[in-house]
Amino acid sequence: MDFEPRATRKDITGALSRPEFFSYGVEAYEAWKKRSLTSDIIAEQKKVQEADLVMFQFPLYWFSVPAVLKGWMDRVLCQGFAFDIPGFYDDGLLKGKLAILSITTGGTADMYWKTGANGDFRYFLWPLQHGTLHFCGFKVLAPHISFAPEYASEEERKGMVASWAQRLKTIWNEEPIPCSPPWYFGQ
Amino acid sequence: MDFEPRATRKDITGALSRPEFFSYGVEAYEAWKKRSLTSDIIAEQKKVQEADLVMFQFPLYWFSVPAVLKGWMDRVLCQGFAFDIPGFYDDGLLKGKLAILSITTGGTADMYWKTGANGDFRYFLWPLQHGTLHFCGFKVLAPHISFAPEYASEEERKGMVASWAQRLKTIWNEEPIPCSPPWYFGQ
Repeated sequence: MDFEPRATRKDITGALSRPEFFSYGVEAYEAWKKRSLTSDIIAEQKKVQEADLVMFQFPLYWFSVPAVLKGWMDRVLCQGFAFDIPGFYDDGLLKGKLAILSITTGGTADMYWKTGANGDFRYFLWPLQHGTLHFCGFKVLAPHISFAPEYASEEERKGMVASWAQRLKTIWNEEPIPCSPPWYFGQ
Repeated sequence: MDFEPRATRKDITGALSRPEFFSYGVEAYEAWKKRSLTSDIIAEQKKVQEADLVMFQFPLYWFSVPAVLKGWMDRVLCQGFAFDIPGFYDDGLLKGKLAILSITTGGTADMYWKTGANGDFRYFLWPLQHGTLHFCGFKVLAPHISFAPEYASEEERKGMVASWAQRLKTIWNEEPIPCSPPWYFGQ
């Protein structure tokens, strides 16, 4: 996927609403209302609108999504389409939809355990699952994490794929995680 | 800045070390060793190498960096240059350097307080400050957060800039934050 990740002036095809002081958030919101966002954004928004479940499959880069997927979030999930003020978290505009992160890692589970995560990915996934997906109204299914496929044997890799395939068979029966601050940090 | 955010095959100028099974991390590491990374990455690595303090100035997008800056981290902070295994966290290859996040937000401080952060940005900044910068060996100074400049008056905005300028005068005297899991989550 060669999606453009950079959020720029080029994303607004018409005149700017406030040309003297460019604000990407303000202009994207106005362009969404006037249907003057650039065509690649509109095409992605249409896919999201039609989906019941959005799966994000990515390799973990710096404990987050790679830039190309971050750019998808920055550009596609704009105000007016994905949220409004008010109109976020449980009232987010994409409510009624499910989302899931399916992640491959560079390091083994053991390495994440040692380096401060204590094996618990909630710490890293909070900005994505709560701050982004839940903010837009998605209910979030438990993340699917495949550790270090590059260091695994061919047989182990096949096992990872089989386990994901198995999970997908009954994914519609799954309950979402309680994707809220107390669940993440026990407040 | 029109930096390329996407980590792709194009970042390796020479032959691949494992062409039958492309892994960005593996190939970037090998290319770093052979000095065959693409020129925009090398130019940025040179800037980092010469810096005593790296300042990341950005608007908060989805509780993280915009994609263009995420791409800078994905591509510039490669294995061999910024870390190695072993050679991370306190032993990261960029140890001896300082880093600071200077952030502008879309929402007011009050909005972050309400939406689960309790006004505490440590929850969001953990993947960047600990998972990325500290991982590479940087000591991290306390983040500088300017809330909602777009909703502020001209006078308030001037105050934000003045306060940042004031801080910079004595920034060399500052002690880094204890950027470790217990500091973030009180484990």
